[in-house]
Amino acid sequence: MQDREKLDELNKLSKLIRYYSLAMSTAVGSGHPTSSLSATELMAGLMFGGTFRYDLDHPENPNNDRLIFSKGHASPLFYALWAAAGKLTEEDLMTYREFGSPLEGHPTVTFRYAEAATGSLGQGLSIGVGMALNARYLDKLPYRTYVLLGDSEMSEGSQWESMQIAAHYELDNLVGVMDVNRLGQRGETMYGHDLQAYQQRITSFGWETIVIDGHSYPEILAAYEKALHPSGKPAMIIARTVKGKGVSFLEDKNGWHGVALQEDDFLRALRELGHIDRSVKGTLPKPENVKPQAPKPQGIGKVDYPADKPIATRQAFGKALVRIYPRFPAIVSLDAEVNNSTGADQFKGAHPERFFEMYIAEQNMVGTALGLSRRGKVPFVSTFAAFLTRAFDQIRMSQYSDANIKFVGSHAGVSIGQDGPSQMGLEDIAMFRTILNSIVLYPSDAVSTDHLVEEAAKHQGIAYIRTTRMATQIIYSAEESFVIGGSKVLRRSGRDVATVIAAGVTLHEALKAHEELKKEGITIRVIDLYSIKPLDEATLREAASDTGCLITVEDHCAEGGMGEAVRSALSTVTVPIYSLAVRKKPKSGKPAELLDYEEISQSAIARKVKELM
Amino acid sequence: MQDREKLDELNKLSKLIRYYSLAMSTAVGSGHPTSSLSATELMAGLMFGGTFRYDLDHPENPNNDRLIFSKGHASPLFYALWAAAGKLTEEDLMTYREFGSPLEGHPTVTFRYAEAATGSLGQGLSIGVGMALNARYLDKLPYRTYVLLGDSEMSEGSQWESMQIAAHYELDNLVGVMDVNRLGQRGETMYGHDLQAYQQRITSFGWETIVIDGHSYPEILAAYEKALHPSGKPAMIIARTVKGKGVSFLEDKNGWHGVALQEDDFLRALRELGHIDRSVKGTLPKPENVKPQAPKPQGIGKVDYPADKPIATRQAFGKALVRIYPRFPAIVSLDAEVNNSTGADQFKGAHPERFFEMYIAEQNMVGTALGLSRRGKVPFVSTFAAFLTRAFDQIRMSQYSDANIKFVGSHAGVSIGQDGPSQMGLEDIAMFRTILNSIVLYPSDAVSTDHLVEEAAKHQGIAYIRTTRMATQIIYSAEESFVIGGSKVLRRSGRDVATVIAAGVTLHEALKAHEELKKEGITIRVIDLYSIKPLDEATLREAASDTGCLITVEDHCAEGGMGEAVRSALSTVTVPIYSLAVRKKPKSGKPAELLDYEEISQSAIARKVKELM
Repeated sequence: MQDREKLDELNKLSKLIRYYSLAMSTAVGSGHPTSSLSATELMAGLMFGGTFRYDLDHPENPNNDRLIFSKGHASPLFYALWAAAGKLTEEDLMTYREFGSPLEGHPTVTFRYAEAATGSLGQGLSIGVGMALNARYLDKLPYRTYVLLGDSEMSEGSQWESMQIAAHYELDNLVGVMDVNRLGQRGETMYGHDLQAYQQRITSFGWETIVIDGHSYPEILAAYEKALHPSGKPAMIIARTVKGKGVSFLEDKNGWHGVALQEDDFLRALRELGHIDRSVKGTLPKPENVKPQAPKPQGIGKVDYPADKPIATRQAFGKALVRIYPRFPAIVSLDAEVNNSTGADQFKGAHPERFFEMYIAEQNMVGTALGLSRRGKVPFVSTFAAFLTRAFDQIRMSQYSDANIKFVGSHAGVSIGQDGPSQMGLEDIAMFRTILNSIVLYPSDAVSTDHLVEEAAKHQGIAYIRTTRMATQIIYSAEESFVIGGSKVLRRSGRDVATVIAAGVTLHEALKAHEELKKEGITIRVIDLYSIKPLDEATLREAASDTGCLITVEDHCAEGGMGEAVRSALSTVTVPIYSLAVRKKPKSGKPAELLDYEEISQSAIARKVKELM
Repeated sequence: MQDREKLDELNKLSKLIRYYSLAMSTAVGSGHPTSSLSATELMAGLMFGGTFRYDLDHPENPNNDRLIFSKGHASPLFYALWAAAGKLTEEDLMTYREFGSPLEGHPTVTFRYAEAATGSLGQGLSIGVGMALNARYLDKLPYRTYVLLGDSEMSEGSQWESMQIAAHYELDNLVGVMDVNRLGQRGETMYGHDLQAYQQRITSFGWETIVIDGHSYPEILAAYEKALHPSGKPAMIIARTVKGKGVSFLEDKNGWHGVALQEDDFLRALRELGHIDRSVKGTLPKPENVKPQAPKPQGIGKVDYPADKPIATRQAFGKALVRIYPRFPAIVSLDAEVNNSTGADQFKGAHPERFFEMYIAEQNMVGTALGLSRRGKVPFVSTFAAFLTRAFDQIRMSQYSDANIKFVGSHAGVSIGQDGPSQMGLEDIAMFRTILNSIVLYPSDAVSTDHLVEEAAKHQGIAYIRTTRMATQIIYSAEESFVIGGSKVLRRSGRDVATVIAAGVTLHEALKAHEELKKEGITIRVIDLYSIKPLDEATLREAASDTGCLITVEDHCAEGGMGEAVRSALSTVTVPIYSLAVRKKPKSGKPAELLDYEEISQSAIARKVKELM
């Protein structure tokens, strides 16, 4: 009886949700109604079938279960669910995709119930991994994380990265819900309705699998029930569904992906749906009230490096993370199987419970970091600068989730030497500069690295810190202060003939060039532009006006790097700006040979200054 | 007896190869000898066991079997193999990692026997997929492709993308050789020596698997033999190996990854290896002499668009590809499940045998394109511009393989409208500009798109073409010519107060702004900068000097895009350069609303011009 009523209610809810999905997409004339219809029962069953625990008035409640639409194009369904829960009106829904509406074409965090922005496929599961990791290992909360997955997006490698890591960390608080509706955008998926193909793959990756009919509420409810059993394994519900389900002329038909119904088709569809009960409202149980485990901020020690001992900034990064952790106890460290190269091993040693080995799978590492960030953590994500390019799409997407992630790329530039171009980060500054409101820092010695790691931790938002493989001299005293958007004028005189702007490894070359030129009676200004974005426009302007000419020197390609950042900042300052950068195909060799070859070394700088005199 | 001799010879060869691997890394003081030792028998068995067919004096022979070291850090082994084959002297080997030596730290195509540059893990298998696809479906040649894989790199999602596509295309001419030596860089891999874990996963992805002891020649030779049987499935040899094999103090020990032996350890190791027979030489059978199937170039039709019918440049791309194919019969088209959005469906319709659906797996798509490119094809790789960021690492690496790939990114910019930021390509120009010697084209109408697709096909190297979702007016007559590095001055007068530089969708806004301003008696110069890299410096300089001020307008983020390209080209020209670009977090909305919001629309341009007057 109870069951009968429940099913009746769910059936009413799915009708209402289908109506909403169709109505809102038809109203705006775009969107993905058919991809919404296939997952309607799966999602209504989850949210209103008694499984999903959520405090509707407090999305910020840390105990809420989490729901991520990895197939973000099913946004009509996503918004329809919250409408069915009473948190959006039909009028709200009709603002779908309108300029200024929080109901964007693909969910972003402008909508308060979205856990993260999705829409680039194959990213939701990694975000879910981050949230589940947080529940299990950090906050130690009983909330569960659910991820709605499309079948088409299972071809993204990132999914299998997430899959293996979820199994590795035994995340049985993570449930994937796969909407196998057979059809992608332009036709059938690789496996169509062969659910076994998915089951075999997913089982082999260490997950529990539950295969069901994705339109049968009894099967759906039983599956969610089953997925709750603690098994030490994450669970995947693999559901056979029909794209366009509920509307005969859309069902299982190709050519309807991302197509909203015209008015007449919409009315036909409505007739098929039959009576819509607008009074029905989905209810959700509230979560338990458990307090997250959270270490309290403590005082921290001072930056401390002997002035005479060169040390690599990558090592200083690790040491800094250990130093500042007590003040920033939300910090977690993620590394892609190179922690002994990036310096993150020091943090792992000091706080193993807050270090997560993510193996060589950068995409999932960044997605996981986003999930952690959305749950209030401050992830430091480290690998070789070159390999962060692997996760550019995840980095790009994280900006639409208002991520608070710190990226640390080691082995920047040709100065890594013998390992050769595949390991050289030469595009990383350009990549991170494209991210809206990102911070890009490039310290040149251990002291500035240490300070800037602390500044990055303090900053709310996406920050990138670029570190160097080789040991570099200590330039600064420990008391020196460094701020985001700052710079240091390291050499200046009243008769500087040019200003050399450098950062990281090239700053040391610039200082040496200064010495060399000084012996010949030529003085140059040298600026450490450790903050590349934002940058210290005032100091640069002053230098331009004082010296009449600027030379940027960077161990990075000429495009999108420090040189162009300076040019953009000074685009209305009419002094010439020269850029020394990596312009030839790099190769293996000694660091010094490569700096010379690329003309970003001491001698190249000195030569350029003289050429301009 | 024959077998006995063969095994004796192989054993001698593996000793010699081990000696080479150790000697060359010790000589330079860096490199990955232990990762080379684990795969020595696997690779010597392949190359000198009778399986691998190769014309040593003609690496360009299209019938050669292909060998790709996906674990590129095992480069000592790679070079040692060619030395054992007699194609490098011991003296050559001692130049390993030296500046100017073709024997780089990770293989690049500077070394004539390298099929592609590797070193960023998880990329070799996709390159192999491209070569195997070429053999099976294009050149129709009997060569086989072998890929040496590390166990640690199996955690890269890209591997599973390659795996699924190889099975999908039934590439039984592709053989993976997995060197399961248990240890990654900083410790044990996720599965250690659990070969079953790999076998289950790989079998479930549709491959034949052969599990062997990777140091037993009889098992290795039998495995290669077995892998030759046509089964309709690619084959993976999963070999249990020991990292550092052959040197007791290195064997299966953590902490020796990427560490060259010091002189004394090297001598200890040599004593363990025992007598090295430098006279032994590996021999390889020559391949069959089969002629690749290659269509002959033909004449092509002319660009043809009615002047009054707006059409999206993405559609024009597809049409152009069909038009030019007869002249460039090496063209193949690869698309990531969005060919009905990118326009590639037109080519698929016309030449289905040269179109490969790569599903939603952009990394493997680019790796496959590289493999095809290395076999002489001209791949056009298309998806949404935003999603090309998914493959930045593969794009970056392709430059070190001298790739000849044409990337086409559709749905560029905020002008896509309602779908929202996840689908907007806003970083693509910056990304492609970082690639050495890349070409970046951004046409604004169908005619220029058509011409520029042809120019891109003619060009040898990496080119990127950015296309727009919405239909745009035809600006040019079909006879107009477009060149890489060119531009078009569309509006000019003797009294232009500013120059507006635009491309793609913003060019139309600039032209409208020109009309608007003209009504008020203000004239501006308007330049179509359809070639963003390289760019037409002379025309820009002339405009700067004529009008005293430049305004760039782009539907792309402010960093690394057209604005900075112009600033870099004119960095010694002392006129102010203003940039209108996407500077606020974009959202869903109508294209026109978004262009206004980001201040890159007609009215924003007109406003800026007036502000500067």
